[in-house]
Amino acid sequence: MLTYKDIEESYKRISKYIYKTPLEKSFYLSHDTTNFYLKLESLQRVKSFKIRGAFSKMTLLTKEEKSRGVVAISSGNHGVAVSYAATQLGVEKVIIIAPKTTPSSKVERIKFYGGQVILEGQNYDEAHHFGEQYIKDNQMTEIDAYYKDEDVYAGQGTTGLEILNERPEIDTILVPIGGGGLITGIAVAAKAINPNLKIIGIQPEACAAMLKAMEDQVFYKDYPTEPSTCDALVGGVGELSYKMSESCIDEVVLVSEAYILKGLSHVILQEKFIVEPSSAICVGAVLQHKNKYWGKNVAMVMSGGNLDETLAVQSIKQQSNKK
Amino acid sequence: MLTYKDIEESYKRISKYIYKTPLEKSFYLSHDTTNFYLKLESLQRVKSFKIRGAFSKMTLLTKEEKSRGVVAISSGNHGVAVSYAATQLGVEKVIIIAPKTTPSSKVERIKFYGGQVILEGQNYDEAHHFGEQYIKDNQMTEIDAYYKDEDVYAGQGTTGLEILNERPEIDTILVPIGGGGLITGIAVAAKAINPNLKIIGIQPEACAAMLKAMEDQVFYKDYPTEPSTCDALVGGVGELSYKMSESCIDEVVLVSEAYILKGLSHVILQEKFIVEPSSAICVGAVLQHKNKYWGKNVAMVMSGGNLDETLAVQSIKQQSNKK
Repeated sequence: MLTYKDIEESYKRISKYIYKTPLEKSFYLSHDTTNFYLKLESLQRVKSFKIRGAFSKMTLLTKEEKSRGVVAISSGNHGVAVSYAATQLGVEKVIIIAPKTTPSSKVERIKFYGGQVILEGQNYDEAHHFGEQYIKDNQMTEIDAYYKDEDVYAGQGTTGLEILNERPEIDTILVPIGGGGLITGIAVAAKAINPNLKIIGIQPEACAAMLKAMEDQVFYKDYPTEPSTCDALVGGVGELSYKMSESCIDEVVLVSEAYILKGLSHVILQEKFIVEPSSAICVGAVLQHKNKYWGKNVAMVMSGGNLDETLAVQSIKQQSNKK
Repeated sequence: MLTYKDIEESYKRISKYIYKTPLEKSFYLSHDTTNFYLKLESLQRVKSFKIRGAFSKMTLLTKEEKSRGVVAISSGNHGVAVSYAATQLGVEKVIIIAPKTTPSSKVERIKFYGGQVILEGQNYDEAHHFGEQYIKDNQMTEIDAYYKDEDVYAGQGTTGLEILNERPEIDTILVPIGGGGLITGIAVAAKAINPNLKIIGIQPEACAAMLKAMEDQVFYKDYPTEPSTCDALVGGVGELSYKMSESCIDEVVLVSEAYILKGLSHVILQEKFIVEPSSAICVGAVLQHKNKYWGKNVAMVMSGGNLDETLAVQSIKQQSNKK
């Protein structure tokens, strides 16, 4: 199981490679004794917290493992993060495996940071199947996105260390749940520092995978989803995050698509930061349940900043037409 | 005259109060041997480089000066910066004087950080006239926005130190010119480190005050302007920046309003940062004169992030309608 010490050790390894991202007070959401802060991992290197896990894992590789190279299976932020981090660490062979449906803009971004891209399969599952075999055949190291690698989880948890180091008065942290690596890491770090601190997981109504897994006490490796703008938050949960969920997650809050978009335009137009819907969902949760956090010191984790251009335009137009 | 040593000393005083802002490579503008970087002062505390000058000046105040309090005349980023910095430094009496036409949202923001607001006059000149008298009558210290205070200029110059410390290969810096405090400070810092480095000032076509001042060899304290989205860049120049312009500014480039908006939507939608038009103008300059920077390592100073909401919506709608 992941421990506080793992996260501390991870932070020692990775801190020189990453930004200590700002924890900015929201002027618009805070009032009286209620304080809201944005932890801006959207401003992290390559615009996502995934870089923490990628460095955390790869700074542990032996010389021989490095020379055999690394593989990640991802068309999203994780793929970009692994491409960037591996290059920084002098790993020459970096393969990112993604489905054939991956937009060329994403492929170009991965290549820009030094990774090679292999497009295989019509969807993520097919790419994943191919990838697992590829890794075995080539004796390379997989850099796991969220499934069960404690070294990756420890890296994501360093986000929690930074929050509590900067503002020890934080008593509530809102974290979006995709696979669950981020929330699990942050929970282990934050609860070790302050056992009374509450960790609130945020998921779209469209895919309540972790909420249902915890209610049903079933590990949902896959989970069906309705359409959602939060592409990083749909699908099943990670095995390790499921196993640790009871001790890590105090509550899961679901947010409607309408409130996710409200959160998104709030962050862009009022707070003036570009974040993904999968991050803005935390602000959506606050807007949807306004009185829930009264008197608290709340940190909301803005996990990534790679907002799709079309979605940015759509959300801003929609919001401004309503006014 | 402002020297490199002043800027170094200023940095020692202020660095614990400010962010060392990121210098992010533009994936979209860079190509082959040409590299473009965004110096993101838009992510500075209270979202503007003005905080550097405010801290630089106020960390020099005597106990007695502090107890008599400080005044700034500004309805913009400078007013917010002084309000924030003074409060951080324990200055209890902080007066920001602004014209009666100042939008209430700006007044609220100044108050949020601890400053008192006095609204006087129908425009900036009238507010300024009132302010000068107020400062004399109350024996308070003025925190000058850009006019001639070397301690303020030294603070703005620390932006240049950070750029060159992080990437010594930078050979060209594009800096928006309003009063000229920022470009003068950056030039003194950067040219001391690399005498061959070029400092390019950027102004809107609507108000070429510094260009004309340098051409005509006349100090234009005031200057007429056509309508421009760059409200921070119109009007006259500072006395000190004018005096130092020949040694500091290698060239002034003018940018059309159309290219300012192109720059703005580029930074928001591609680079995914919220900046003001008065910062995006540097990107507009690059888009307008694409081949001018071939083979260079160019830093573009994104001076502020307080983008007006209406303008954000307008620029994004306009750009997306063209597609």
